[in-house]
Amino acid sequence: MAFNRVAIVGLGLIGSSIARAARENMPAVTLAGYDADPGVRARAGELGLVEVAGTAAGALRDADLVILCVPVGAMEAAAADIAPHLSPSVIVSDVGSSKASVAAALREQLPHARIVPAHPVAGTENSGPDAGFATLFRGRWCILTPDEGAAPEDVEAVSQFWAELGAKVEVMDAKHHDLVLAVTSHLPHLIAYTIVGTASDLEGVTESEVIKYSAGGFRDFTRIAASNPTMWRDIFLANKEAVLEMLQRFHEDLTMLQRAIRWDDGDTLFELFTRTRAIRRGIVEQGQDVARPDFGRSEA
Amino acid sequence: MAFNRVAIVGLGLIGSSIARAARENMPAVTLAGYDADPGVRARAGELGLVEVAGTAAGALRDADLVILCVPVGAMEAAAADIAPHLSPSVIVSDVGSSKASVAAALREQLPHARIVPAHPVAGTENSGPDAGFATLFRGRWCILTPDEGAAPEDVEAVSQFWAELGAKVEVMDAKHHDLVLAVTSHLPHLIAYTIVGTASDLEGVTESEVIKYSAGGFRDFTRIAASNPTMWRDIFLANKEAVLEMLQRFHEDLTMLQRAIRWDDGDTLFELFTRTRAIRRGIVEQGQDVARPDFGRSEA
Repeated sequence: MAFNRVAIVGLGLIGSSIARAARENMPAVTLAGYDADPGVRARAGELGLVEVAGTAAGALRDADLVILCVPVGAMEAAAADIAPHLSPSVIVSDVGSSKASVAAALREQLPHARIVPAHPVAGTENSGPDAGFATLFRGRWCILTPDEGAAPEDVEAVSQFWAELGAKVEVMDAKHHDLVLAVTSHLPHLIAYTIVGTASDLEGVTESEVIKYSAGGFRDFTRIAASNPTMWRDIFLANKEAVLEMLQRFHEDLTMLQRAIRWDDGDTLFELFTRTRAIRRGIVEQGQDVARPDFGRSEA
Repeated sequence: MAFNRVAIVGLGLIGSSIARAARENMPAVTLAGYDADPGVRARAGELGLVEVAGTAAGALRDADLVILCVPVGAMEAAAADIAPHLSPSVIVSDVGSSKASVAAALREQLPHARIVPAHPVAGTENSGPDAGFATLFRGRWCILTPDEGAAPEDVEAVSQFWAELGAKVEVMDAKHHDLVLAVTSHLPHLIAYTIVGTASDLEGVTESEVIKYSAGGFRDFTRIAASNPTMWRDIFLANKEAVLEMLQRFHEDLTMLQRAIRWDDGDTLFELFTRTRAIRRGIVEQGQDVARPDFGRSEA
């Protein structure tokens, strides 16, 4: 392991999961941490997740890797906060869900730093230091998006770190990352938030009816629509172009289905509904979801 | 229990789950069954789910309750099939996800029958007689939509039957049912099918990338987009008006969010994303979904 002391800035779901996973898988590594929220710092201390520092500078002392685990809209401020205390030997990484804009913000604030941006494609609908757990990254992908100037050995070191946490690592261009995640993550969240909002604003159907009969499909959307509002607001603004592009595609496809329903075109519906089953099969086969029917809820 | 012999017409996920749940909870009731597909009949026989008959008429013999468990587009044909063999003492029910059009079809084919339509709001993404299980209806709602002419004792008998299967029973007007389910079930399925289709048709992102990085949110949509294509084609055509109405609302709300993203209006996004968390809480509190983060996948 290339790192002796890792500083985690931001101790929410992802930051605290990194701490837990590192403790479990890399016991020799010392973990320091900081969060801008005093309540979160106190809680992280109670949980014994990391050596909690009262400032970002304190967490950074003697660290050889610092990971920014804050909402993407707060990345630039977090980078500015650590800038004066950064030694040239430290590698700077982050866990932002949108990469091109975050990379630009980090480069702006830390022009000479050794930056290796990362995005672990993992999470739950819960937030805060209590929500994290050590196995969050196990079997999930972590995408690194170093720019052309990054040293190969820095990329390798961060890659090894994530592999030790249990993730599978992939290196990708930041712009391509943003396009891929717009469709696999950002668009689904936007749509889930929208439909949950739509359902709560109807005059003919009450909110309590929506809740009561949600097992018909709606409840699946509510899980991701319960995700951290700050984090997601930032992601949509940070990855605006790719999200709007994907939204346009989705609009077109939905309009086509709307038309098929209006004109009783059952064949168009049937053809699509058959095709979509194959994607589900692929996701289960590749271990990115559980095969248990109903997500295993029926066993609860 | 008002029934001695129950005939199940259609032995897929729902029909076979009724058989399993009835066997477990009402051992004194005799179960007969029929399916138009010879392969399904053979499999139901191997599984010992019901006394399998070679014709609907055979399954109906001496039954005092017959439940049509076929896609809503096949209800009229199934009703026509049983019409000549129906004794006046039999209660006819169904499990269709759309009620007004199914009620009209049943009434058309069975003008003098004692009809009590039902819709158990439960299911999984899997289909066929092997997919059913005895606890599918436990704690879920079953909505009965009898018309004004239905005898109260018939409604009571069907209600008691579903309660014995583990469901909570609610009586509702068929048109209101169709509106409620359009938002809690039909619209979510339509949107899930659409986004999975959109994701598989992009030129900049490959299908294998979509599968690989699906844990970012997309995979939640693929579960319901793997549901039975015939069943869902029929539902959208049968509940066209309510689905188109809900789709229009959804379109408007999505357009509002699209505009907020384009104009960097973070407050609008944040306000909605905060509101939607409360709905999730309600669903979990009322036992319509599990509280385990990530649907409990992380425990797998």
